[in-house]
Amino acid sequence: MAHFINEPENSVTEAIDGLIAASGGRLVRLDGYPYVRVVIRSDWDKSQVALISGGGSGHEPAHAGFVGAGMLTAAVCGDVFASPSVDAVLAGILAVTGPAGCLLIVKNYTGDRLNFGLAAARARSLGHKVELVIVGDDIALPDLLQPRGVAGTLFVHKIAGAMAREGADLKTIAGAARRTAARTKSFGMSLDTCEVPGSPKEDRIPVGKIELGLGIHGEPGVRQADFKNVRTALMSVCDSLAATMIDGPHVVLVNNLGGTSNLEMSVIVHELIQSHLGNKISHIVGPATMMGSLGMHGVSISTYPATPHELELLVAPVPLNTWPGVFSIAPVQTIPLSSKLEPVNFPASVNLLLSDMLSDCCKTLIASRTELNALDAKSGDGDTGSTVAKAAETLLAASEQLPFAEPSQLYQALAQILGQAMGGSSGILLSIYFAATGNALAHGRPTIEALKLGLEEIMNIGGAKRGDRTMIDALEPALDSLIYGIEDAAVAARKGANHTSTMLKAGAGRASYVSADQLSGHVDPGAEAVARVFECLAENSLKKLP
Amino acid sequence: MAHFINEPENSVTEAIDGLIAASGGRLVRLDGYPYVRVVIRSDWDKSQVALISGGGSGHEPAHAGFVGAGMLTAAVCGDVFASPSVDAVLAGILAVTGPAGCLLIVKNYTGDRLNFGLAAARARSLGHKVELVIVGDDIALPDLLQPRGVAGTLFVHKIAGAMAREGADLKTIAGAARRTAARTKSFGMSLDTCEVPGSPKEDRIPVGKIELGLGIHGEPGVRQADFKNVRTALMSVCDSLAATMIDGPHVVLVNNLGGTSNLEMSVIVHELIQSHLGNKISHIVGPATMMGSLGMHGVSISTYPATPHELELLVAPVPLNTWPGVFSIAPVQTIPLSSKLEPVNFPASVNLLLSDMLSDCCKTLIASRTELNALDAKSGDGDTGSTVAKAAETLLAASEQLPFAEPSQLYQALAQILGQAMGGSSGILLSIYFAATGNALAHGRPTIEALKLGLEEIMNIGGAKRGDRTMIDALEPALDSLIYGIEDAAVAARKGANHTSTMLKAGAGRASYVSADQLSGHVDPGAEAVARVFECLAENSLKKLP
Repeated sequence: MAHFINEPENSVTEAIDGLIAASGGRLVRLDGYPYVRVVIRSDWDKSQVALISGGGSGHEPAHAGFVGAGMLTAAVCGDVFASPSVDAVLAGILAVTGPAGCLLIVKNYTGDRLNFGLAAARARSLGHKVELVIVGDDIALPDLLQPRGVAGTLFVHKIAGAMAREGADLKTIAGAARRTAARTKSFGMSLDTCEVPGSPKEDRIPVGKIELGLGIHGEPGVRQADFKNVRTALMSVCDSLAATMIDGPHVVLVNNLGGTSNLEMSVIVHELIQSHLGNKISHIVGPATMMGSLGMHGVSISTYPATPHELELLVAPVPLNTWPGVFSIAPVQTIPLSSKLEPVNFPASVNLLLSDMLSDCCKTLIASRTELNALDAKSGDGDTGSTVAKAAETLLAASEQLPFAEPSQLYQALAQILGQAMGGSSGILLSIYFAATGNALAHGRPTIEALKLGLEEIMNIGGAKRGDRTMIDALEPALDSLIYGIEDAAVAARKGANHTSTMLKAGAGRASYVSADQLSGHVDPGAEAVARVFECLAENSLKKLP
Repeated sequence: MAHFINEPENSVTEAIDGLIAASGGRLVRLDGYPYVRVVIRSDWDKSQVALISGGGSGHEPAHAGFVGAGMLTAAVCGDVFASPSVDAVLAGILAVTGPAGCLLIVKNYTGDRLNFGLAAARARSLGHKVELVIVGDDIALPDLLQPRGVAGTLFVHKIAGAMAREGADLKTIAGAARRTAARTKSFGMSLDTCEVPGSPKEDRIPVGKIELGLGIHGEPGVRQADFKNVRTALMSVCDSLAATMIDGPHVVLVNNLGGTSNLEMSVIVHELIQSHLGNKISHIVGPATMMGSLGMHGVSISTYPATPHELELLVAPVPLNTWPGVFSIAPVQTIPLSSKLEPVNFPASVNLLLSDMLSDCCKTLIASRTELNALDAKSGDGDTGSTVAKAAETLLAASEQLPFAEPSQLYQALAQILGQAMGGSSGILLSIYFAATGNALAHGRPTIEALKLGLEEIMNIGGAKRGDRTMIDALEPALDSLIYGIEDAAVAARKGANHTSTMLKAGAGRASYVSADQLSGHVDPGAEAVARVFECLAENSLKKLP
């Protein structure tokens, strides 16, 4: 699998410059590429305790993405999954540390402990007040004396960041950060390994398996299990977390490891709330990618039993789009459907002229079934005749209940029946046509204008216009001629329908995928049906003449 | 590839309930699962124009994730990649539409046009003011009369949403939305197809190829090209976009299709700014997953030539963590490194006693090279002796420049030299030890206390404690006995070192991966080195006796 990068060795510096350029001036960096990769708040004035985190890259947005007021002052970025050097960390400390001092928040990996630790020692030698907190929130390996630091680190960033912003002193912030680090617990799982750009992918997790208890560098997890569904997989995670959780409410942080879709993430949240952990979860951070593992198709869950004051610190807003905020968990509220969703039952009424016209048109369309199907076979799937005939049969069967005496209601009723009885796009388009026409009539528009407004609506919704080889090629000229009488309209519809046989490119519908050769010489079946309806109406009208 | 879901047919409803439960009460939904899946702002009072969008699911956070003040009023969710039904859309319209009316924002797919279109017609029949805007921002297929609607739809959501919040009327908002839709252009590319949960993955894009001009449903793109790097791939995208862009500044929306790591996304932003499109980009939205395609490893770029007023509407803050905000593009600013990063050069000074002690210790360690290597071979990679000897040689060579007369400076100098000359964790740990000790001396602490503070620091940073089979097992008892004199300290160090041969489990360092059988009977090489140093110091001290 390739990645959207250039030379792998430049990925981290290019990504940092992309992040800074898109920050609207909120971020700057230290000089010293490529060895010193330190991202800093541009508005930092050293008046408060500085907070620095960092470590290997590949976990974005952690940590540079969390640099901003109320979270980190600076982030020191190593190569992908590799600790930054002592000098880089020291450069960061020296750049942001004022009289209030500096707290280093370090994930528990040997390289990070040592490099940040030595940098802290050197900075102290230079006269700076520097404290260091190590986060080891991963509980996947309970026998490990040095548990890994993973996504729970975000709780430390946020709580310490809010305290620093409030002006707390270094000792107080460091104490709170250590307390948070000690009480944060995390557990991860993944359906696939991640792939470091420039390195081959490790096919460690077979299809059908899930790996439980894995970290953020693609290192193997504690065990693999059959993956049945998210419910059972999450149960293992929740079992492990539950064993470490105290009584009382917890904030949960749901972290995407980078390649899990948001659809899945929300399903995970749903399952988490339904799980046996659910009644211990009062608030949630995420779901979001906060501590990624490149594009890994996995997730981690972190829990923290925040005190009321800590909850306030977590909730305090920050101007960072990477921090998803903290929200209380609440049962899903539903509101009832509108009673107007029920189909309106218009009272049946009599208008013999109109009911005869409808009946004749329906019979004409039913009789056209075979011919229309044959025409459609030239350009589509050969079912226009059947679809139209079925709709006509439904209309005929319903005709005794129709409100013939109220044309605006009649068109609405036709719209309802066609929308339900006639499958496919054409049924919906005709339904839109009759609904729009009936609506215009109800608003007092004259009949011909109402019919044209209906046409306008389906041209807008359906996206076809005259010349696109659709029923519009018959309907539009017919409506344009209707002011001269139904006979003229029928002639115009026929002319328009026949003209479609010369159109060698369809602009909409399935026929748009058919070649010119196949279309040539054949009338569009929709236009043909429209022409036959107008011809039927004209004939009907002539019959009624005395 | 599996997904973090349960039964595929329940994924959308479970995801919606997860989204709502984690919304802190900001979202509710309509009753009517599973057919009606409509997410609504809980604080909606129908006093303004309602904005509804929706379509197939699988594009999260679009659209339900953008429901909130200043963006959408409601989202109507279909199955994955399938349009919602007319009834579902109508249910949404009826739930949120008041006297101010409703605007439907619809991506240009036949199913969505028709279902939203008919729902609009029905709602109008019921007396509601409903307008519809169709977004077809994809420029990948220039001959397509009905271009697809993709991530540029977000510009329409945001501009229309800000106007609705300001109280604009339906006609004004619809006009602005249509204008925005007409001027938004998007182009996508991907390194892999997406996979619909429950369906087999299409292996359409071979390794080493990129597909250009693809949509948000995994449908094939316009063409495949060799993938060399992101720079050349993005060039194709920029060429296509440039042809559609007018003069003047544009807002660019950088959309993750769901499975691209944030590291890559920032590299893409960097390249985009460096590209020939760069001078036309004034502002950026993202990078972020806004209109995803499940977990697709791809990206889309959308451009919009916002007027100053439209820019204000885009910038207007919204309480939605899914909307990443709009930021101006600015050159990367750097700040210079601190001059204090240079190694401090302490002035050389003379203390014959101390220089003799150092010299003797170094010689002892150099002479121990083979024995220490042999010990390390039992539990590690057999290089402790070499590492220690090399550091000792460096110290010997530098001894004429050392500030022997100022112990606090001497320890700092040792820290500097060991940090640079001695590889691996042990070099950094010793450097931390001497720096912390020197720092304590500089702050006026007595020597033994300073040495103990150094020990405390490396125990904190290194994570090892007594009993973990490290050099601490010799160093701690030695320092504890130092008040009784160097001879007692040496005895204690030796006893502590020898005791490590009975420790069958190492708590830190590489030896922690070695089995008890292999460790049994062998002294830890680090502890042995410490014991030899103390024994050397004690002997040196005896020699000096008159």
